[in-house]
Amino acid sequence: MEGEFRIRGECALRLLITKLDIINSALLIRRSRNVIQMRSGRMKSFGSVCKKLERKGLEPDFDVALERINDLVGVRAICSYLDDIYQVADLLKKQEDVRLLKEKDYIKCPKKSGYQSLHLILEVAVPFQRGAQWTKAELQLRTAAMDYWASLDHQLRYKKGNRQAQLIDGELRSCAETIAGLDERMLAIRRKIEEI
Amino acid sequence: MEGEFRIRGECALRLLITKLDIINSALLIRRSRNVIQMRSGRMKSFGSVCKKLERKGLEPDFDVALERINDLVGVRAICSYLDDIYQVADLLKKQEDVRLLKEKDYIKCPKKSGYQSLHLILEVAVPFQRGAQWTKAELQLRTAAMDYWASLDHQLRYKKGNRQAQLIDGELRSCAETIAGLDERMLAIRRKIEEI
Amino acid sequence: MEGEFRIRGECALRLLITKLDIINSALLIRRSRNVIQMRSGRMKSFGSVCKKLERKGLEPDFDVALERINDLVGVRAICSYLDDIYQVADLLKKQEDVRLLKEKDYIKCPKKSGYQSLHLILEVAVPFQRGAQWTKAELQLRTAAMDYWASLDHQLRYKKGNRQAQLIDGELRSCAETIAGLDERMLAIRRKIEEI
Amino acid sequence: MEGEFRIRGECALRLLITKLDIINSALLIRRSRNVIQMRSGRMKSFGSVCKKLERKGLEPDFDVALERINDLVGVRAICSYLDDIYQVADLLKKQEDVRLLKEKDYIKCPKKSGYQSLHLILEVAVPFQRGAQWTKAELQLRTAAMDYWASLDHQLRYKKGNRQAQLIDGELRSCAETIAGLDERMLAIRRKIEEI
Repeated sequence: MEGEFRIRGECALRLLITKLDIINSALLIRRSRNVIQMRSGRMKSFGSVCKKLERKGLEPDFDVALERINDLVGVRAICSYLDDIYQVADLLKKQEDVRLLKEKDYIKCPKKSGYQSLHLILEVAVPFQRGAQWTKAELQLRTAAMDYWASLDHQLRYKKGNRQAQLIDGELRSCAETIAGLDERMLAIRRKIEEI
Repeated sequence: MEGEFRIRGECALRLLITKLDIINSALLIRRSRNVIQMRSGRMKSFGSVCKKLERKGLEPDFDVALERINDLVGVRAICSYLDDIYQVADLLKKQEDVRLLKEKDYIKCPKKSGYQSLHLILEVAVPFQRGAQWTKAELQLRTAAMDYWASLDHQLRYKKGNRQAQLIDGELRSCAETIAGLDERMLAIRRKIEEI
Repeated sequence: MEGEFRIRGECALRLLITKLDIINSALLIRRSRNVIQMRSGRMKSFGSVCKKLERKGLEPDFDVALERINDLVGVRAICSYLDDIYQVADLLKKQEDVRLLKEKDYIKCPKKSGYQSLHLILEVAVPFQRGAQWTKAELQLRTAAMDYWASLDHQLRYKKGNRQAQLIDGELRSCAETIAGLDERMLAIRRKIEEI
Repeated sequence: MEGEFRIRGECALRLLITKLDIINSALLIRRSRNVIQMRSGRMKSFGSVCKKLERKGLEPDFDVALERINDLVGVRAICSYLDDIYQVADLLKKQEDVRLLKEKDYIKCPKKSGYQSLHLILEVAVPFQRGAQWTKAELQLRTAAMDYWASLDHQLRYKKGNRQAQLIDGELRSCAETIAGLDERMLAIRRKIEEI
């Protein structure tokens, strides 16, 4: 049923965002700074879910979608520093109503394009009337600099294939390296400040 | 520590409100209407917590406050109809990370003033770094009509003792009866509509 | 263009809600209470706009919609008391970037069904790049008790025609009278409290 | 009166944020991308206002504060690219209920520390009962990379004077240069993408 499909997704989204807010608050006590600068989420429309199911050779069905589409619910968190990303991930993975299905670390191993982020495919227990409904969600964790890069890469993606685009690809990859270096330097500076 | 005190309270507040939103969403599927019209919350300032502790002959301490003040965190939900109040309460009480400490049903037994609401004293498990922190919260459930009355009664409370106020008390009590009757009639009409 | 149509509507919505919030804040200083308890808004989907244009014998066009549909943008404000409704309306009508097109006072003259509310058809100046775009919006102002009644009436509307529904109509009308009386009594009590 | 002081500030804050949201929406039509990624605001507490007045040799008075403290209301907007910063600023300055008092361009002329941002000291007309109340506010516009740097610099500021801190200062300045270069390159890449 479409109603249930949409509502399960929205509830998983809200729950995951509340969990991120609580993690940020809990860490604020010890760190006196926000580890999460911004978080946002979106649920895929049923239209784009169907296209994805079709590409996978699956039926355009709500239950199949809930079962097979990992990023039906997508949440993105911009963390202040590199190490915050891993700490937020760890605290989330420990929770009883969260299960980790898959982890893809594009920070340690960036994509060929230069893309960096930590992706977690999770299941979250949504407390529904007839008991917990484990619902899939994808969480992307990154720094502000990685996010800056990703938004530019996203604009380019729609123009790929073009010869001009290939030149730009190279420049973007070089920016990605600058950003990776910047993230390391910013973290190193923060650690030195903490030691003073 | 004040930081932890405030943050535990705020997290409990956010969690409880997310739980109410999910209950409303889950019921929306079956009912095609909102059972919760509005919800809001507040955390008591440490100043007013201290006054309350003093009145109870207790020390003005953060841990004592978390242990002994039931309404440190207060959430109010305006439900659409009388029966929605009890359903929301039931669904909340069933959840694993919620414990019911006390229930005061001022709808079945209104206060002498005429005040009506269902009060639940709860404990909510806030997922902190070193494990779940069970934190107290008071949830008040009422209809819009009860809330209308309560806000007027609240304005009068600060002027009690005055002779004029006693006359008004009587009028307010009579309004409370009209409201109780109205809530019953509205529920009865809704049930008739559903049966058509 | 659909993009501009939707965005002009959303901006008008946001602006009107900000105006209501500011009015509430400004009055809070003098009254020490909220005159607006809750406000919400929605924009009509282009689908339902088209149906409405068709019923009026008009073309399903974005510009026609912006010109001719009064409730393309709809905002509802629940006021604490009867007199608050008129004060909020007055303060809004005075503003330079707001124009009143029409006023329908269903409180002084309730609809036959019993429906009560104050409706204002407004134009709001949305500050766009090429200057202010005056955009239509409908504001409904009512008390919590009127809103309670209206939500029940709304559920019934979809079942009209039915013979059973006619009996219920009568009961709803009688509730509307109780509510009108209740609003008057609550206002009278508040005034007495203020005089103490 | 403290109530009016706080409420005028909060209303100016809300109005300015609504204006930024509308600018972002209006530009979204043409650009198909957000020019403002995030915006947030805060109002200075009366305590810290008083300290600032004292440093200036002024009386700790609400009216004096409204008259003389430029950043009583502070809003920050993170723009997607360098050129978005200037466009948002231009659109805001053109509005009838906004006046520009001062502009400090720390992007063209960064501070010695390396700090970059565009600061606008504005007056916003808050529509109060007795007419528009022009209220001061400071708007800071920057890219995500500048914001990243500024938050790290902010952490260091509380430890200045220390010898270790001077070494870190140098490293931060060098990061600021990398960031300035990165912002230029990202803008250049975006322009190339747009031309494809």
